[in-house]
Amino acid sequence: MNEKILGQGNLGIKRFFNLDTQAYHVGALSAKTKELLGLVASLVLRCDDCVTYHIIQCVSQKVTDEEFFEAFNVGLIVGGSITIPHLRHAVDTLEECRGKAKTGS
Amino acid sequence: MNEKILGQGNLGIKRFFNLDTQAYHVGALSAKTKELLGLVASLVLRCDDCVTYHIIQCVSQKVTDEEFFEAFNVGLIVGGSITIPHLRHAVDTLEECRGKAKTGS
Amino acid sequence: MNEKILGQGNLGIKRFFNLDTQAYHVGALSAKTKELLGLVASLVLRCDDCVTYHIIQCVSQKVTDEEFFEAFNVGLIVGGSITIPHLRHAVDTLEECRGKAKTGS
Amino acid sequence: MNEKILGQGNLGIKRFFNLDTQAYHVGALSAKTKELLGLVASLVLRCDDCVTYHIIQCVSQKVTDEEFFEAFNVGLIVGGSITIPHLRHAVDTLEECRGKAKTGS
Amino acid sequence: MNEKILGQGNLGIKRFFNLDTQAYHVGALSAKTKELLGLVASLVLRCDDCVTYHIIQCVSQKVTDEEFFEAFNVGLIVGGSITIPHLRHAVDTLEECRGKAKTGS
Amino acid sequence: MNEKILGQGNLGIKRFFNLDTQAYHVGALSAKTKELLGLVASLVLRCDDCVTYHIIQCVSQKVTDEEFFEAFNVGLIVGGSITIPHLRHAVDTLEECRGKAKTGS
Repeated sequence: MNEKILGQGNLGIKRFFNLDTQAYHVGALSAKTKELLGLVASLVLRCDDCVTYHIIQCVSQKVTDEEFFEAFNVGLIVGGSITIPHLRHAVDTLEECRGKAKTGS
Repeated sequence: MNEKILGQGNLGIKRFFNLDTQAYHVGALSAKTKELLGLVASLVLRCDDCVTYHIIQCVSQKVTDEEFFEAFNVGLIVGGSITIPHLRHAVDTLEECRGKAKTGS
Repeated sequence: MNEKILGQGNLGIKRFFNLDTQAYHVGALSAKTKELLGLVASLVLRCDDCVTYHIIQCVSQKVTDEEFFEAFNVGLIVGGSITIPHLRHAVDTLEECRGKAKTGS
Repeated sequence: MNEKILGQGNLGIKRFFNLDTQAYHVGALSAKTKELLGLVASLVLRCDDCVTYHIIQCVSQKVTDEEFFEAFNVGLIVGGSITIPHLRHAVDTLEECRGKAKTGS
Repeated sequence: MNEKILGQGNLGIKRFFNLDTQAYHVGALSAKTKELLGLVASLVLRCDDCVTYHIIQCVSQKVTDEEFFEAFNVGLIVGGSITIPHLRHAVDTLEECRGKAKTGS
Repeated sequence: MNEKILGQGNLGIKRFFNLDTQAYHVGALSAKTKELLGLVASLVLRCDDCVTYHIIQCVSQKVTDEEFFEAFNVGLIVGGSITIPHLRHAVDTLEECRGKAKTGS
């Protein structure tokens, strides 16, 4: 789908997508920390697709379950009970990632 | 002001304030990482008072300028140009914190 | 699903869920009024799952159709046309609740 | 200021302002309940001016301090710690209203 | 569904729906410009149903693909990467509208 | 202030600011239409600084008062009464711009 968006030829959108990718590359902060930042931002802004994306990235950055739940807790406290449906989605997605990892090994 | 709120005797509010404090204590994630999570969440939700609070906490957790700006960049990309006034506020606050630190030493 | 979240053992999240439940218990304000507050807050924040939950609670607190629509109207005025898809969801959910009640009697 | 907006002659805006006023008139729900709905909606959407307005209306509808804090608690739980600066504003405004009432008597 | 909402007889809601329709009628600004305003507002507020509605209206107002993507770009810059899932939805919907138009001719 | 942010040397932020500027340049859509899109997006997202900025840009693009109020009306309908304080700010800013223009001539 992203290819479809980018294929349309709007230069501003194409460049935004590049900036978006680069924002999470390792720098002074680790890629792991940056993905956690993206995850909590997605949780408090209540975007399920974004939560899914950052959970997958966090898993590949070796975020542990305990670390995930502490990050979820920050998101829940900052964003309130209105984030709970997205927290459920996050836990579901995490479980699916862990399950696939096991099956794959 | 918080004392005034808590002095009113609503138990739910008092407990929420406790949970809020505890969410940023060191655990599986460092206090520094948690404060950065709080900072970016505050930036994308566009709350100047919350940004101020977390910048002060981040400074006391030894977050460097380069780390701050990478975190700001994540917030800016996730939240868009609508966060720019709050980014300005964040940079102002950070500068003030750094200035005070210098004067104080 | 909530059990899965709570079973993971993060104390902050567990306590938040308790506070969330207690916030709607009868006190100086009736449980009915509190559920209506939760419903309108959910509508203006545009969370379908939360709207569903509070409509079910409101129905069990004997909120009438006329009361529901006056609460919906407050939500619509405060939150604007962007809440209309959630208003549709709310009306759908309410109708389902009323239908089930009839079938059950 | 509202007069300036309405004086400009845009019919849609004028009619919206009328609907806004009417939404809080007594109906199946009391004016007190409707003002509490407006207050909590304003708190979770984090609008200080709107919070001020609805606190003044709630005070004139005889909402007690205990009732106010239970409503604030619902707003805090739903909206999370990001609402705390607006909760502070609400408590400040309430105190000012109570102070004026005492001085006036 | 709108009929169901309006059939319930709440006058405030009925009048709001009228104002909503009238806001997009041609005036000093063209209907095309107003629909683009509605589209970008829906994108930054991240409401898929509203995005769908305004894309259909924009297509009937002869908005070209290039114009659409420039409007999407404004929405993306203002609202940030959190709008990307809704941008995808917008592009999907637009493609469907264009496809139907071709098939229909 | 923007210079201070950009002077810090974070490339992502610098590039974002460039994209932000370019998004409003004339293209398939006129600069005037794009500024109106930015204005309504700012209004529904309730950012006073952004509203101020886009009003100034719209004035320099020869947007008339009638056009402004039709755009405000779209923002008010989409975003609801919670946008009213920002609508007041917008009308204030517009008046100031018009006043300065008169004085300047």
